[in-house]
Amino acid sequence: MQQPELRRDPLRDTWTIFSEERRRRPSEYHFQQSADAVFDPFAPGHEKSTPPEILALRPENSEANSPGWKWRVVPNRYPALRIEGRPEGRPDGIFDAMDGLGAHEVVIETCDSLPLEKLPVAHVASVLGAWKQRILDLTKDVRFQYICVFKNHGPLAGATLSHAHSQIVALPLVPELIRRMCTNAAQYFRWKGRHWFRDLLLHEEQVNKRVVFENSGFVVLCPYASRFLFEMAIYPRRLSANFQTCTEHDLNQLAEALQAVLLRMNLALENPAYNITLLNGPLNAVREATPEALLIRDSWCWHLEITPRLGTLAGFELGTGFHINTLLPEDAARHLREVIG
Amino acid sequence: MQQPELRRDPLRDTWTIFSEERRRRPSEYHFQQSADAVFDPFAPGHEKSTPPEILALRPENSEANSPGWKWRVVPNRYPALRIEGRPEGRPDGIFDAMDGLGAHEVVIETCDSLPLEKLPVAHVASVLGAWKQRILDLTKDVRFQYICVFKNHGPLAGATLSHAHSQIVALPLVPELIRRMCTNAAQYFRWKGRHWFRDLLLHEEQVNKRVVFENSGFVVLCPYASRFLFEMAIYPRRLSANFQTCTEHDLNQLAEALQAVLLRMNLALENPAYNITLLNGPLNAVREATPEALLIRDSWCWHLEITPRLGTLAGFELGTGFHINTLLPEDAARHLREVIG
Repeated sequence: MQQPELRRDPLRDTWTIFSEERRRRPSEYHFQQSADAVFDPFAPGHEKSTPPEILALRPENSEANSPGWKWRVVPNRYPALRIEGRPEGRPDGIFDAMDGLGAHEVVIETCDSLPLEKLPVAHVASVLGAWKQRILDLTKDVRFQYICVFKNHGPLAGATLSHAHSQIVALPLVPELIRRMCTNAAQYFRWKGRHWFRDLLLHEEQVNKRVVFENSGFVVLCPYASRFLFEMAIYPRRLSANFQTCTEHDLNQLAEALQAVLLRMNLALENPAYNITLLNGPLNAVREATPEALLIRDSWCWHLEITPRLGTLAGFELGTGFHINTLLPEDAARHLREVIG
Repeated sequence: MQQPELRRDPLRDTWTIFSEERRRRPSEYHFQQSADAVFDPFAPGHEKSTPPEILALRPENSEANSPGWKWRVVPNRYPALRIEGRPEGRPDGIFDAMDGLGAHEVVIETCDSLPLEKLPVAHVASVLGAWKQRILDLTKDVRFQYICVFKNHGPLAGATLSHAHSQIVALPLVPELIRRMCTNAAQYFRWKGRHWFRDLLLHEEQVNKRVVFENSGFVVLCPYASRFLFEMAIYPRRLSANFQTCTEHDLNQLAEALQAVLLRMNLALENPAYNITLLNGPLNAVREATPEALLIRDSWCWHLEITPRLGTLAGFELGTGFHINTLLPEDAARHLREVIG
């Protein structure tokens, strides 16, 4: 296997990315052994241990891939997908395959050893701006249909390096999960003539039991059907299908909300491993004027999910897609509100 | 929260079980701390530390809940769901909830400290027979729509106790995952006039690259779109929508296949944590003669998935439902075939 390959699970309608590249990563086979006790490839001065940077916040006139930066975006050294290939599916016997086409980038969020939530709010906003810039740039490649942004913090959340970073993966198709979520939001819109996300925020403010934090731009909730203990979701008040429509003001407000609730989570759970995932709209919603694209624009809204990872997904979750949670979101939200006096 | 509650995620169309009961379990908050270094509640002589047994393999005339058994089925002491309640959904503001109605049982697979795969094949067959008996019995409760059987082995696979056991959960609804898989199998049947699972086995025998083991009753494959390293699936040659139609002969053959490939997996991966999940047909397929039920009977086939757990699911998997795998199933299957000379 030279080139990564995408293969479809015909019954789940999901795809697996096969990438031998990634087998070379440290600690693939042995959990919780991290190479970075020895060497941090993301530290200042180690710029040569990553592929050349795509984007960075650094002093004017400073040289690319030299120290002095505040954050850097680099191609993943062990990419799951590659920029070469065609975005069409092909038969493989009775199955379906596709070139492992895409992009896989790493946002090194800071030159310090601090986690994201301990950085100044303006810096967090600037990192979110890096997400936006990279999404806008990757959107120009019309072979990409969806861009997933996520952050793994801690071994239990799948991080192999402890230096604060997030990842951006551009995919040549829209995942079934995103299609399903958009379809359900669109059904609500067709039924009610109203935006699900608007009604969600109105309802949550009415019942006032699951809100953890709000500012003028964003509302952070413990979701009604939280899958994980102390799960949170951040919704923008200004509804938009795609994250990349955020203004600078939006990103500042988002950074404030994100930092506020991550710090509360750290206090409540003693610095747990966590994931942040961006549930973004598909790229056709910003590119096209087809009825389908317009419907997504009318009914979908990007949001962030924050999932503390205190355990692992077991056979029940794998076999049903359901989750078991031991704490109601009302109780989690109250705890997160009260943890800072 | 007295009674457990089911709550629907409106966009994913999945449900979360909220059960405060389960918070009392050892090691809920702190990963990989297991109570059973101290005390094994599943060991012979400790029968009083589980709820009274529902079923057991024990000498004739021996008293229930006394030692001497070979396996026992008991209610889970920390049940996710309870037998009381109504199977109807209800509105909860803009959301949907349901009583946490169901059953949650534990199959204590052996009186020894051995893992399932090291037990005699006849014993493994007998444990699979316990699964069958419990499914048949739970099917009588018409409030249940789906029965999930799974096994967690090792902390990374979600096991909180190391004594070999599997679990049976009866649900008052059919999970979206199972509905989706059945729908896709049914679409194939309508399009081709043939059974997906029949074509799958014919195709896999033709290409002969992903078969790990076969006997007269079963074929074990590394699936084409394997989500996990060294993932395997066991398919019956005699197609049937529901596991509980297995004959004693089938269960013997299944036990042989299961044991053969678990031992190979242990050799290849040095005794990894793993899950086994039963992808069973919904209960309407055995209860009803509606067109929908008949279509499932025509097009679905139960099977087992074996997923070694060498890492954790990270933000990419949570945010897309896709997986990244670093080894093609053809290579995994060859390795598993060759690991025993």
